[in-house]
Amino acid sequence: MMHAIQRERAHDLLRAQGIERALFSTPWSVTWLTGFAAQVPSGPNLFLAGPPLVWYAGGEWTMIVLDAHAAAAERSGCPVLHYRGYTLHEPIASQRSLFAVVQHLTAAARGVVGIEPHTLPLFLRAALPVAAEPRAIDSLLVPARMVKTDEELALLRANFALTDVGLDAARRAVVPGATELDVWAALEHAITLAAGQRVAIGNDCTVGRRAHQGGWPQPVVIREDDSFVVDLSTQLGGYWSDSCATYYAGTPSPRQAALHRLVSDALEYAISLVRPGRNTGELDRAVRQYLRDAGEADYPHHTGHGVGVSGHEEPRIVPYADITLEAGMVIMLEPGVYLPGETGIRLEHGMLVTATGAELLTKHATRWEA
Amino acid sequence: MMHAIQRERAHDLLRAQGIERALFSTPWSVTWLTGFAAQVPSGPNLFLAGPPLVWYAGGEWTMIVLDAHAAAAERSGCPVLHYRGYTLHEPIASQRSLFAVVQHLTAAARGVVGIEPHTLPLFLRAALPVAAEPRAIDSLLVPARMVKTDEELALLRANFALTDVGLDAARRAVVPGATELDVWAALEHAITLAAGQRVAIGNDCTVGRRAHQGGWPQPVVIREDDSFVVDLSTQLGGYWSDSCATYYAGTPSPRQAALHRLVSDALEYAISLVRPGRNTGELDRAVRQYLRDAGEADYPHHTGHGVGVSGHEEPRIVPYADITLEAGMVIMLEPGVYLPGETGIRLEHGMLVTATGAELLTKHATRWEA
Repeated sequence: MMHAIQRERAHDLLRAQGIERALFSTPWSVTWLTGFAAQVPSGPNLFLAGPPLVWYAGGEWTMIVLDAHAAAAERSGCPVLHYRGYTLHEPIASQRSLFAVVQHLTAAARGVVGIEPHTLPLFLRAALPVAAEPRAIDSLLVPARMVKTDEELALLRANFALTDVGLDAARRAVVPGATELDVWAALEHAITLAAGQRVAIGNDCTVGRRAHQGGWPQPVVIREDDSFVVDLSTQLGGYWSDSCATYYAGTPSPRQAALHRLVSDALEYAISLVRPGRNTGELDRAVRQYLRDAGEADYPHHTGHGVGVSGHEEPRIVPYADITLEAGMVIMLEPGVYLPGETGIRLEHGMLVTATGAELLTKHATRWEA
Repeated sequence: MMHAIQRERAHDLLRAQGIERALFSTPWSVTWLTGFAAQVPSGPNLFLAGPPLVWYAGGEWTMIVLDAHAAAAERSGCPVLHYRGYTLHEPIASQRSLFAVVQHLTAAARGVVGIEPHTLPLFLRAALPVAAEPRAIDSLLVPARMVKTDEELALLRANFALTDVGLDAARRAVVPGATELDVWAALEHAITLAAGQRVAIGNDCTVGRRAHQGGWPQPVVIREDDSFVVDLSTQLGGYWSDSCATYYAGTPSPRQAALHRLVSDALEYAISLVRPGRNTGELDRAVRQYLRDAGEADYPHHTGHGVGVSGHEEPRIVPYADITLEAGMVIMLEPGVYLPGETGIRLEHGMLVTATGAELLTKHATRWEA
């Protein structure tokens, strides 16, 4: 049974709120509860009538997915009901089919029914029986997702291994005259081969002079004096990785080398602060102050964040944060320095919070070495 | 003004139904009405509170998008309102921000308000004023999307040019000993360079012996006697292309060559039937019968489909279909023959229905040439 511990935790959370039935529709909830993640699609799918759903009633869990996804969903170990998507001999009626499945499954529900209205399509509201009293629980599972199980940690490690592969390919592809797109092609090919399948890949692949904007690669030619920022995340098996390295097309200038050293130092300082009991807002402020003390502006983004079924999740490590780190959380830390139009450097490691500190899950070098 | 013709058509359709206000939430509706398509994401985005929306009132159109998408949305020429996604100094409240924008924009609505309940998140229902009477219009724009404008045709042509590039790269990569993943990497790299950016790419890239299942590439090694099916679609600028070619790792066997000739003939026969006034169900049945008359089983999928803001849309060319082709429609035709475990051949062209027949939009060779 995949994710049995998660369903146990969710069961306890629902019970504590007096909720005996719930319909989950948020992708992160569904993946966390079951281990099922629909393949990241190349675009909207005409045959899909809505997000995959999970129904909880009387301590039992049932998934509702598109027929084409039923085999993958069954690997979760939860009972699976499917609705009909693709048709050949009659008009597509996937929404009607999904509606009927939800209606049948929830027919006996009375009293409070937890729902996630931010992701539940409006038409499914009427599939719940009139005796049901919907209560919004969109945020219920969010805190429970922060501390990872061994099963989740294995999936995270597999994804962090893919970012290591991608960063290594990118490092070799950053040469004067190549374009951002060439670097992207190199890392995408390496990750696809290492994973043995297409993988969702995200984030930034840009010359440092435009790294303050970030974004996907463009046909920008790499110059001899460019730094190059690769902020890379992958998703395989429903879990994400993340990571960021900065490479150089030639030899870094003295200013680049000094800034790179400073950002490396800031990242190591940040990692040294990670331990159970650390306040996340305090961690954010300490790392920013480290750069300011060195006479540089701090970065216009978060210091870090959790990673799991979402590539960016709690605990966010940002100025307003007030969460206490616990052993078993997996977090990213990513200080940077940006001189728009000139250069940019960001370095990021992912780590498991352990009983005594942090175990790095990303293995790429963040110190610059000639 | 992008897509002004589409908004004019939608205005007429809404008026004809007596609908003076409408909130569109389906990705295909939004792209068709405005030209705006959010970059195909690598996964769910924590800062996104819902789909992009279009509000119609008193003949005026307004878009509602995530702050990070506002600049891209403004290129549509429609007024744009945005809600706040990413935060650094306070907790994420994107749903509350989106809710407030919808509430403010629709505050004066009275009487019938068209909505798309299959895609509208439930929480936004309460953002409409109590005096609004929601009426489902999910299917209203679907027929209007079939005949393309010149603006749409230009976007479709640009995407069909990308599939030509991808197929050409795939053809050269199909060699004994390479894997399906190698073929994929070659075509993905070629398309990315030709487009000058990351592009959503879909469909099948498999050895012919497993082409009846289709799907994304796996680490399957190509054998000397393999056919290879590449069914390729791309999306750039909100519009899709599609296409399918079958290549050979070595010299096709006499049986493969005969089947390839048959499928080519069937495709040419199908294309010869395309003209305004042709019934789509009749077209489907005629092409299946062509293969049966030659003593082969017909294919377990559609004969073809429209293509536009969705990669598969009306007019579907399937047994139950009963739509009449019109000049300006853009359709795909894709007969195939599958011998599971042995070989598989599918050939597909995209075309514009013209006053007298069909103009091919895909340029790849479908006859096999040594």
